[in-house]
Amino acid sequence: MTLDELYTPCLIADKGIVKRNIDRMNKQAERLGVALRPHVKTAKSVEVALMINGGSVGPITVSTLREAEYFAAAGFKDIIYAVSMVPEKLDRAKDIIDRGVDLKMIIDNADVARAISDAGVRYHRVYKLMVEIDVDMHRAGLSPDDPEMLNVARAINDGEGTELAGVLTHAGESYHSKNEEDLIAAAQNERDLIVRAAENIRAAGLPCPIVSCGSTPTATHAKDLSGVTELRAGVYVFQDLYQAGSGNADAESDLALSVLTTVISHKKNQNRIITDAGGMALSKDQSTRGTDFDAGYGLVADIDGKIIDNLYVCSANQEHGIITTRDGSAFDFDRFPIGTRLRILPNHACMTAAAYDKYNVVDGGREIVEIWNRCNGW
Amino acid sequence: MTLDELYTPCLIADKGIVKRNIDRMNKQAERLGVALRPHVKTAKSVEVALMINGGSVGPITVSTLREAEYFAAAGFKDIIYAVSMVPEKLDRAKDIIDRGVDLKMIIDNADVARAISDAGVRYHRVYKLMVEIDVDMHRAGLSPDDPEMLNVARAINDGEGTELAGVLTHAGESYHSKNEEDLIAAAQNERDLIVRAAENIRAAGLPCPIVSCGSTPTATHAKDLSGVTELRAGVYVFQDLYQAGSGNADAESDLALSVLTTVISHKKNQNRIITDAGGMALSKDQSTRGTDFDAGYGLVADIDGKIIDNLYVCSANQEHGIITTRDGSAFDFDRFPIGTRLRILPNHACMTAAAYDKYNVVDGGREIVEIWNRCNGW
Repeated sequence: MTLDELYTPCLIADKGIVKRNIDRMNKQAERLGVALRPHVKTAKSVEVALMINGGSVGPITVSTLREAEYFAAAGFKDIIYAVSMVPEKLDRAKDIIDRGVDLKMIIDNADVARAISDAGVRYHRVYKLMVEIDVDMHRAGLSPDDPEMLNVARAINDGEGTELAGVLTHAGESYHSKNEEDLIAAAQNERDLIVRAAENIRAAGLPCPIVSCGSTPTATHAKDLSGVTELRAGVYVFQDLYQAGSGNADAESDLALSVLTTVISHKKNQNRIITDAGGMALSKDQSTRGTDFDAGYGLVADIDGKIIDNLYVCSANQEHGIITTRDGSAFDFDRFPIGTRLRILPNHACMTAAAYDKYNVVDGGREIVEIWNRCNGW
Repeated sequence: MTLDELYTPCLIADKGIVKRNIDRMNKQAERLGVALRPHVKTAKSVEVALMINGGSVGPITVSTLREAEYFAAAGFKDIIYAVSMVPEKLDRAKDIIDRGVDLKMIIDNADVARAISDAGVRYHRVYKLMVEIDVDMHRAGLSPDDPEMLNVARAINDGEGTELAGVLTHAGESYHSKNEEDLIAAAQNERDLIVRAAENIRAAGLPCPIVSCGSTPTATHAKDLSGVTELRAGVYVFQDLYQAGSGNADAESDLALSVLTTVISHKKNQNRIITDAGGMALSKDQSTRGTDFDAGYGLVADIDGKIIDNLYVCSANQEHGIITTRDGSAFDFDRFPIGTRLRILPNHACMTAAAYDKYNVVDGGREIVEIWNRCNGW
């Protein structure tokens, strides 16, 4: 099977590029002297997670319990579920632990710590919990110097059904960095504050074995991670236009994910062509909107993955992707007859991949060399 | 099972509201004297499609061949695939026809008509094609008075492997109507131009049995559809915030779809709470953005579906939905302890439902009275 034969729209991953992206981040972690715990929320694929660790299972981060279950079934044993845990979901966590998984969960609230401990006692389990630290007001977590941070750590440590496994943060605001200097500063800030949280916990006489931080932008730009035990990053395996626009990837050479699509209509009186990759196939993510790198709903590449200058997906209905010229110049309709296959590079790989249940994998050429599975849902 | 027990995030549909929405549109079609051919692209669910037609199979519109296959397997026999067909996909269409389905497809190009006819001859099939008409420069199709429109009709009619089944349009720009007067005008324009296309075809001595138009906004506001044979609409079965903001639905009583979510973190220093329904669970659709009805990534209702004043989902990370007050007033954290269940009303039902493989169906209360399937993908 080749790209010329697949039904469109469908999801394409380029193995050679994925491998390069993986090697680069592995080297970065090695250079920084920290373990890499990839966030598998982007690819959600056992094949990709294995590739990161040289073909064998390694430590991973997940964003849903469904992912934890999927990777546990494939033999992954060291998993952090990096979204605030609530007691209501503990029976699923118990089942994952009972498969032999060393599962760590994160919280930022002492009442929740106590409720989870109570459940642990009830279930005869000891749940490993980490305190989520907020380093940039992006999402959940507590500031390292907030007295409540220590209260949560202490509640976990004191709980009969819980064990304090460490601290974790995600410098999500680094996604909005404007230049390399900002990115380096965001990485330094993330490192400094997560280490300070660990130090505050240890100074209070509590254990803090894991000190976990990371995001693709900060992991890529970190200069020093002393005191950090592990680095997390996710989207780097595929990269995307948002990462390219933010200086974390090269649009021409690092983007491993694309949506294969077919030209289905010529709209000559509107200077545009229509493809079968619309909002469902690309997602409605417009994260590059308003930036210098605004790509609409995606950039347009030919079937071989080479970006076509001056075209972009300007609009996306449910099953129609509308492509026009960026500068308003006349569209070369003869170059793209109806039936032409194109590849759309997405703004946000995590969101785009979520519409599909598998990756059609190429390795530079048009031949489908492998199929990679992915899990979706919760 | 009740809403208090489901794992979150998950998709909820309220059967009573769906039924009311269905009844209203059925009555509207009856009043207008046209057949209703619902667009099943929103619910993508056999159960919902059957409900529209009083429990038996009826004519439907689909947006993907996967939907056509899914509904064909459930016994639906009269299907329009309302996205421009290309020859590359004809073998799937053939298989659908071979299951006894009267499948109609749409095109807007004479070369495509000839290529499909050639394939028909090769496969010993006659493909039924409709000419897509453009009434408002929204998407694909040809203007009714464009000479090319007649060329396409003639090419279909003359082709040995094709049969001219009629004309079809979708007044997609009606989604941007600003008030009732605009909506009524958009409906009238859609009717006038699709009928003119049919008249032009007939005046050229060609057949035009089906004259198909519609969208939820124009179907809701049409006053007269004389000359039209069938009306299409899709999102009305669930409605959503975009439809409510556009005057096609009432936000308090007509919205049948919601995402059940759990409060997972209190971010007191930022006056917000965090739930487990983020961009993956809600979609990144922001179609109400910039309108008077801007709902961010969704409005917030309690577990029983009652909208909570002054709250909205202001931001959506992959698995985190961030809720704050619309007017910046102090958040009442005590009212929403961690673990509280909420229901998020989506901007765009079609996009939000796509993240799920089933509907948990309530009927006013909290009890799950049915599970409805849905199909996804292509």
